[in-house]
Amino acid sequence: MSTPLHETRPGGPGRALPDTQQGMRRRNLARVMHTVSADGPLSRAAVASRIGLTRAAVSTLVDELVRSGLLEELGPERPGRVGRPGSALAVSGRGPAGIGAEVGVDRLAVCAVDLRGRVRSRAVRHVPNRARPAAPVVEDLTALIRAVVAEAEGEGLWPAGLAVAVPGLVARDARTVVRAPNLGWQDTDLGALLPDGLPLTVGNEANFGALAELWLAEGAPRDFLHVSAEIGIGAAVVVDGGLMHGARGFAGELGHVPVWPDGPECACGGRGCLEQYAGEEAVLRAAGLEPGEDRVGLLAGRAERGDAVVRRALHDAGTALGIALTGAVNLLDPRSVVLGGALAALAPWLLPSLRSELARRTAGQACPVSVSALGSAGPLLGAAHSVVRGVLDDPAAVAARA
Amino acid sequence: MSTPLHETRPGGPGRALPDTQQGMRRRNLARVMHTVSADGPLSRAAVASRIGLTRAAVSTLVDELVRSGLLEELGPERPGRVGRPGSALAVSGRGPAGIGAEVGVDRLAVCAVDLRGRVRSRAVRHVPNRARPAAPVVEDLTALIRAVVAEAEGEGLWPAGLAVAVPGLVARDARTVVRAPNLGWQDTDLGALLPDGLPLTVGNEANFGALAELWLAEGAPRDFLHVSAEIGIGAAVVVDGGLMHGARGFAGELGHVPVWPDGPECACGGRGCLEQYAGEEAVLRAAGLEPGEDRVGLLAGRAERGDAVVRRALHDAGTALGIALTGAVNLLDPRSVVLGGALAALAPWLLPSLRSELARRTAGQACPVSVSALGSAGPLLGAAHSVVRGVLDDPAAVAARA
Repeated sequence: MSTPLHETRPGGPGRALPDTQQGMRRRNLARVMHTVSADGPLSRAAVASRIGLTRAAVSTLVDELVRSGLLEELGPERPGRVGRPGSALAVSGRGPAGIGAEVGVDRLAVCAVDLRGRVRSRAVRHVPNRARPAAPVVEDLTALIRAVVAEAEGEGLWPAGLAVAVPGLVARDARTVVRAPNLGWQDTDLGALLPDGLPLTVGNEANFGALAELWLAEGAPRDFLHVSAEIGIGAAVVVDGGLMHGARGFAGELGHVPVWPDGPECACGGRGCLEQYAGEEAVLRAAGLEPGEDRVGLLAGRAERGDAVVRRALHDAGTALGIALTGAVNLLDPRSVVLGGALAALAPWLLPSLRSELARRTAGQACPVSVSALGSAGPLLGAAHSVVRGVLDDPAAVAARA
Repeated sequence: MSTPLHETRPGGPGRALPDTQQGMRRRNLARVMHTVSADGPLSRAAVASRIGLTRAAVSTLVDELVRSGLLEELGPERPGRVGRPGSALAVSGRGPAGIGAEVGVDRLAVCAVDLRGRVRSRAVRHVPNRARPAAPVVEDLTALIRAVVAEAEGEGLWPAGLAVAVPGLVARDARTVVRAPNLGWQDTDLGALLPDGLPLTVGNEANFGALAELWLAEGAPRDFLHVSAEIGIGAAVVVDGGLMHGARGFAGELGHVPVWPDGPECACGGRGCLEQYAGEEAVLRAAGLEPGEDRVGLLAGRAERGDAVVRRALHDAGTALGIALTGAVNLLDPRSVVLGGALAALAPWLLPSLRSELARRTAGQACPVSVSALGSAGPLLGAAHSVVRGVLDDPAAVAARA
């Protein structure tokens, strides 16, 4: 498992930058990249006026980014004259790409996203990963990663980093899965199992889903709570445009907030946790259904067809979500709550009771609850885009590796 | 009420600094101030090696800070030769001071803290402020502020800013008290009532208490939940060494987390909120006592003397706190929970049930719960120190006003 995916490149994005001339140059390179990424194509003069530096200073920065292949000149009048004033700049559609991967209970997925945010290659494989050891799962995942990287390289891209979304708690080292109950993993160092050669970030799927919402959803606020579910219920807290990780990296465990404190025992050691009322298995049990492969599809299909028992089970799950979210909204004061993942698919039947419970308990000041347009695609896209963001945040580190 | 407390000085700390030579100089001035504040007295050479700038660059920065009265030379060998290499530097014990003020339900308090963190002047007045309009309360407070400022000025200090702690929700403008139920205030702009002339920050008392804990307590972690109580129960969330404010500035409303969702109605519109079980009035009611002036002292005294009914009431309040904190710990993943304010005084009788409830519900991974050594002094000290921190964070802005 140690054959490099790609030749090793020194350095990596995201390191702290010292407050020196060199640090200032790196931060200003990042500001140019972010400006062109957000508002491009732009001329050098437009970039200079947006970031408040002189035209000359911006030209030097732009030339460096063009040489490294992170920006490209669009102006076709003088294609041979790189750096010519007046020609429009855009982030490169070749050059570095972010590789995102997702380990789900029922599937593995990988994609490559370029600096423009376009998905350039993608692969999905349905595999029953429940209670399957990490080594064979990662072996399957690595095969998908190699295929996606090869396809991206065929289009002139090169992988700037790999981010892997997992349904579990990840340590702050961003490598170790501390606990993923539905996979059966515990204290599993994915860094040791994945091939060398790419900067690696392992993260919780709800966290990557929230980042996708933050970066890709139209009009997303900078402070929100993103709730998602696969088999468990997870949440991610976005504060001022960034993820709140918590001291150990475990923030957002909404599934284990007590709802009825004398309720049924939970695997976490508590009683009456939200998962006991709104987790997939609890809802299937309340609806009298067997847990199979497409659990969400089964519930949504029955609810759609008007099955009263299923609808009642989802109504009660919405009530429990509303109680747990009342506590979360009081503690976190988010601008909004977003339901993603499986919860997005079940939203039509969860939302009425969820919203009324939350409104009743927060005296009409209820926090708005919406449904993610990304649905179950969020975590994979969030993972790939987190690598792309790393490139925009410190292009100098990536340019050195290009 | 509009007579200036002090002549108006332009500028103010805490503004965003642009990434230019000028911005870099301002940030480096801040690094020098923080380094000398944390580890001084230090020579110029020692400062240079700690912050990784050249000796010459540091000398220029230090000279500017000495000229502005923010740093002083201690080296007595050549007292006439300011800037002489080798002489030790310390933050000034004259110059700017932070003025902290606290509006409590039963008292008003004000203090002045110098850049070295010493309280140089203090005044307290016991006043029943419950359901008293803001204008007369602020009039009394202003008299105390004037007395404290006058005393500080007599010692060669000048007020760099005023921070006011209130028991209520404060808008993100840091001026408007949106809701302070025990004072009876609603949408009250304290900036309009307080005298002009000093940069003003109004904040929630639990938030200032948490900042005091962060800055003043030995070995405080950078991620913790600070729970305090006066009549209500409030909490403050410290994340990576900073306060989490929430979208509207209302984060930390632990008192309205549902504990038993079918429990008694709460003034917030909910049912079974933590305040219904662990707020001062609920505990007094459960103990069969009348709410008087020194409510905490009454409860602590009776519990101390072994009153079984009071001890049972505090035990049950601890259980409710344990349930609400289970949710908070799952959502926020703090390094620890700190009980401050009135809860610190009652901790001996709250902690056993609180800790066992939290441990039972978090499968032995319980978050440590400790008691603040600052007790009820936290919010006032936190307010004054927040002004001092503002000076350390942007000394250039304050130097311009000196």
